[in-house]
Amino acid sequence: MSERRTRSGDEPSAASDWQPSGVVSMLTDFGTSDPYAGIMAGVVLGLAPQARIVDLTHAVPPQAVEIGALLLRSAVPYFSPGAVHLAVVDPGVGSARDPIVAVTESAMLVGPDNGLLHAAATALGLLEVRRIEAGELLLQPVSHTFHGRDVFAPVAGRLAAGLPPAAVGAVLPEMRRLDALDPVREGDRVAGSVLHVDHFGNLITNVPATGLAGERLAIEVGGRRLERLCSSYAEVAEGEILAIAGSWGMLEVAQNRGNAAHTLGVGRGDPVVVHGGSRGV
Amino acid sequence: MSERRTRSGDEPSAASDWQPSGVVSMLTDFGTSDPYAGIMAGVVLGLAPQARIVDLTHAVPPQAVEIGALLLRSAVPYFSPGAVHLAVVDPGVGSARDPIVAVTESAMLVGPDNGLLHAAATALGLLEVRRIEAGELLLQPVSHTFHGRDVFAPVAGRLAAGLPPAAVGAVLPEMRRLDALDPVREGDRVAGSVLHVDHFGNLITNVPATGLAGERLAIEVGGRRLERLCSSYAEVAEGEILAIAGSWGMLEVAQNRGNAAHTLGVGRGDPVVVHGGSRGV
Amino acid sequence: MSERRTRSGDEPSAASDWQPSGVVSMLTDFGTSDPYAGIMAGVVLGLAPQARIVDLTHAVPPQAVEIGALLLRSAVPYFSPGAVHLAVVDPGVGSARDPIVAVTESAMLVGPDNGLLHAAATALGLLEVRRIEAGELLLQPVSHTFHGRDVFAPVAGRLAAGLPPAAVGAVLPEMRRLDALDPVREGDRVAGSVLHVDHFGNLITNVPATGLAGERLAIEVGGRRLERLCSSYAEVAEGEILAIAGSWGMLEVAQNRGNAAHTLGVGRGDPVVVHGGSRGV
Repeated sequence: MSERRTRSGDEPSAASDWQPSGVVSMLTDFGTSDPYAGIMAGVVLGLAPQARIVDLTHAVPPQAVEIGALLLRSAVPYFSPGAVHLAVVDPGVGSARDPIVAVTESAMLVGPDNGLLHAAATALGLLEVRRIEAGELLLQPVSHTFHGRDVFAPVAGRLAAGLPPAAVGAVLPEMRRLDALDPVREGDRVAGSVLHVDHFGNLITNVPATGLAGERLAIEVGGRRLERLCSSYAEVAEGEILAIAGSWGMLEVAQNRGNAAHTLGVGRGDPVVVHGGSRGV
Repeated sequence: MSERRTRSGDEPSAASDWQPSGVVSMLTDFGTSDPYAGIMAGVVLGLAPQARIVDLTHAVPPQAVEIGALLLRSAVPYFSPGAVHLAVVDPGVGSARDPIVAVTESAMLVGPDNGLLHAAATALGLLEVRRIEAGELLLQPVSHTFHGRDVFAPVAGRLAAGLPPAAVGAVLPEMRRLDALDPVREGDRVAGSVLHVDHFGNLITNVPATGLAGERLAIEVGGRRLERLCSSYAEVAEGEILAIAGSWGMLEVAQNRGNAAHTLGVGRGDPVVVHGGSRGV
Repeated sequence: MSERRTRSGDEPSAASDWQPSGVVSMLTDFGTSDPYAGIMAGVVLGLAPQARIVDLTHAVPPQAVEIGALLLRSAVPYFSPGAVHLAVVDPGVGSARDPIVAVTESAMLVGPDNGLLHAAATALGLLEVRRIEAGELLLQPVSHTFHGRDVFAPVAGRLAAGLPPAAVGAVLPEMRRLDALDPVREGDRVAGSVLHVDHFGNLITNVPATGLAGERLAIEVGGRRLERLCSSYAEVAEGEILAIAGSWGMLEVAQNRGNAAHTLGVGRGDPVVVHGGSRGV
């Protein structure tokens, strides 16, 4: 259930040898009721006419950098080498945070240096971080409120059209990271939490699914105790709650043909405790 | 008002002579707040870099196979020959239902064999159904919870890149179909129902619009009696309820510049009775 | 903060020398729960297989032509020359309003002649308006309820594929415009209003931001009095209300890391009064 790149045999595109695929993904907290994301797409296509744009989501809760980081990190491994990932959840727009490009082994990530890009960049093999400094690459005059349009989309478009990442600006010594969302381990007890509730009400936890097994396994969540890890939803009866190694590579709690979050009354940040998951946890 | 293909004069792409157009549509119940649909698009573009992806909708109610089937069937006739339609509403993911490709005269449909694809495949001229069996075409290891990413998107991408459908697996004797949603006819009375309430509150019924006419025509819905079939919304005063031959080829009940579902308090599954629609009904 | 075209140095595409870029934007009130917008995309791609389609928004409130016009006008300046903008907010579908193409210096706009296209066309340099008359360009038989599919998408697709705009029909003497949404000026007092509340709760007003400055500047909105124009959200403390020259080129009222509309209880149409904004206002 671990994540893979779509074409794992391909050579990675290193920082000095950037070969764009022309695929540009976008992830923002802009919603889809305003044309903000479409404007960014228009800017990208003006600079990279052959770009193929993929909307990851524009429904990150407003200014929720942590959720954006999590969703971005869950998606980027499934793109072929050469993608540009344009991510904008940017409560500090117009203030001191740097606009950056994270150069990775397989893709470029473009966005604010507020922690949004770090987990995804690490997952893709971070090579270097560059500060966006070259004003002639941007949409001038740059506004103070919409860097998605004026800073990030132009840089993403140019990278997708072949601009070498070194042209955007100097290397930074490091990029901002968010506090780790790792669970706490004490002996064979793991105190984790719900990272995300998805559209189906599945509870995606911060407990890696790898190695969760064993006769003494027990998972406590929302007052329930689940004593095994299922391998598909259909392994339990309709309406039953189950634990499963989810598609994110994490322990998930789900309801067969139902919404676990509603049924359990459990949401983001709520605790999930795992006992006795011996192998490798 | 009946449906047509966009380029009706073109030769269909038969099973043995698959010529993809590169257009890939997606219809799911994944919502757009998670990056699930975007991940599928990333997988498709990794395998078919020139694909042009069209989102039909990702707002099928969770696990509502019937509604997904209806919406898919309403959309596919408007795509040119050579499209791949990737549809995932899959409450049985990870269980025994087969993953299939429905090969039709003009397009390939990819998804679970749970009835989702049947109406659309029939509308496009079903030639054969193939079970997805060739593991080397999939994203390995295949998860038990996200076949959209690991099974259906890879197959859709490969078909859009020219893979012959025979390569995906053996022919199945039949595909699953849902119970027919046809109205019941008794003499000149037709007892139908509301199949779908669209974004505007229009009530799309299961009564074909063809031939609904005549002096004695009367349509009963939500306590109202409508005595003629209009040909445009503007034929009645603002705020009035009307019956019309809708864009799906079905009898629709609408409100001029309003929301018929709200105004009438009528929803999906509610009855619509037609009297005296003599011609061909 | 004024708007610009992405590539301002490029020569405009005049009416007699239409050179499509292949980019087609779509703006509608169709929502995304039905496949209506995807059907339009399918029709466009059938006629212009290399088109790259950008969704501006499909969440214009049903039949709200004024809001659609405002959002369309905010987006079109950011597309490179050669775009086709397909806009459908069309409460009068099937009635007497004309279907039109607005030919501008840099783009084609396709939609109903109900005021939806006027502001955007003016912003792009309106050259001429043509009535869509050539039935052989349309999807026949044309329905009375879905001109987006049967009239506007086919014309947009053909224009994106290179059809000269003169082929769609005769020149009209003028296009419909909506009542101006300009603020009222009396001496150094400007009585404006909120045009739009965006996804973040920012209040976009009808008062141009250009020249709003001066020691005596005061902005009254929702019972608050704001005495200066900030240049970024971060210029005030978290949670504070501020006035800013927004990305639309208009005075905006926002809350740093919050939702101004919720906090102030202010919505679309509510008054915003500016005093003493001397320079150029």
